[in-house]
Amino acid sequence: MTEQFISSRQNPLLVHTKKLLTSRAYRMQCGEFAADGTKLLEEAVKWEAGLHTVIAQENVELCKLPEFVRLVRVPADVMKSVSQMDAPQGAIFLCKIPQEVSPEVLPGSILLDQVQDPGNVGTILRTADALDVPVVLLDGCADAYNPKTVRASMGAVFRSRVQMMKKEDAVRCCREKNIPLLAAALSEKAKDLRQAELSRAAVIIGSEGQGICRELLFASDGQIIIPMTARCESLNAAIAATIVMWQMKR
Amino acid sequence: MTEQFISSRQNPLLVHTKKLLTSRAYRMQCGEFAADGTKLLEEAVKWEAGLHTVIAQENVELCKLPEFVRLVRVPADVMKSVSQMDAPQGAIFLCKIPQEVSPEVLPGSILLDQVQDPGNVGTILRTADALDVPVVLLDGCADAYNPKTVRASMGAVFRSRVQMMKKEDAVRCCREKNIPLLAAALSEKAKDLRQAELSRAAVIIGSEGQGICRELLFASDGQIIIPMTARCESLNAAIAATIVMWQMKR
Repeated sequence: MTEQFISSRQNPLLVHTKKLLTSRAYRMQCGEFAADGTKLLEEAVKWEAGLHTVIAQENVELCKLPEFVRLVRVPADVMKSVSQMDAPQGAIFLCKIPQEVSPEVLPGSILLDQVQDPGNVGTILRTADALDVPVVLLDGCADAYNPKTVRASMGAVFRSRVQMMKKEDAVRCCREKNIPLLAAALSEKAKDLRQAELSRAAVIIGSEGQGICRELLFASDGQIIIPMTARCESLNAAIAATIVMWQMKR
Repeated sequence: MTEQFISSRQNPLLVHTKKLLTSRAYRMQCGEFAADGTKLLEEAVKWEAGLHTVIAQENVELCKLPEFVRLVRVPADVMKSVSQMDAPQGAIFLCKIPQEVSPEVLPGSILLDQVQDPGNVGTILRTADALDVPVVLLDGCADAYNPKTVRASMGAVFRSRVQMMKKEDAVRCCREKNIPLLAAALSEKAKDLRQAELSRAAVIIGSEGQGICRELLFASDGQIIIPMTARCESLNAAIAATIVMWQMKR
């Protein structure tokens, strides 16, 4: 593997990388994404996650890279200009977005509706990977390949299949497969999570601010609630998803 | 209630507030803390959380404040210079830190060991408040009154007692009250969480990076593990704490 050196911030690779880090539309268009961090890079190498290019700061030590990977070294100030992090670790890398196999809802899944915070989406992907629960991101969620999502996922996006679906397709899929569709909601008619039959269900988790959209609430076969003290209004979306997933798997 | 107007960034109140937002030592010394956000302010008013001063941006609408609260208006650029947030909501407020009643470990608590990320500590306080689980912050954790902790707690610090203890005092307290002290650890000798008797226990949750410190592992009466897929190395500290708390309360 040969190393290249780039010192100009206007270099096309660096401009391309910065756009991948900041624009979802550009990531979709190019079919690739960029992630930031030396530990994440290790995960990407370990799970053979479509990695093809590494941009590393001079003198930053890297894990062993596969032969086919292009390695580019840059000065610290250039790294800082490309990275979106306050304290860049010194390695940004580019990966192909995996080809979409036709997405589907499986029994015992969670579906995320408009969870817009990439940190929450990443944390949910990480936890779901640990607990072996399939996740579907419905339209309106943060992008799985946003660098903040990838970071919070601690590499889960490299090793588990990330599914994205339109709401209506997810509902249709549940109907066809006879999967009960449950909505986690703060409603009086919702059933206590502990009494619900979850093993074959798909459970929708909504955003903290807005909850679950009307059309999905309407399409659902029932509502469940995580019991909590009266003084609390809500839980963080990743926390609510965790409780539902743990309850599904126990 | 009279409104004051301050336009100088060097005004002693603003200098004081900025120090409260950024220095734990200064918060301890003054016995007060500052928090940032209009929704949080509503929570502080609702729970009568020792609120005494509000610094609000001109034209930003506020909830109804108690008569005794001092209200200071500032221009947008001054607000931006005081706030530590990327997009300040326009209200920073000062509260007294509650007097420490002698802290203690209760049966069915969680103890946090060196959880240094304020977002994680705040999320845990929020979740614990929702699930009604007492939390003790052992030395080495992020400050409960760090503005990021307060924000992630969504006001839980205003309504539930935040306990801080030294490690050795927490261990001694468990011994005296005959509370089993369990360590959540990624170890082979750890017992599956689902088989553990948790109802009277105190469970220690460690930091993601370092786990639980040696002295606490040694002092514990047993170790428990959250079962997860082999490919995963760990869970986020707030997620691990959530699973333990939920399992305690089911």
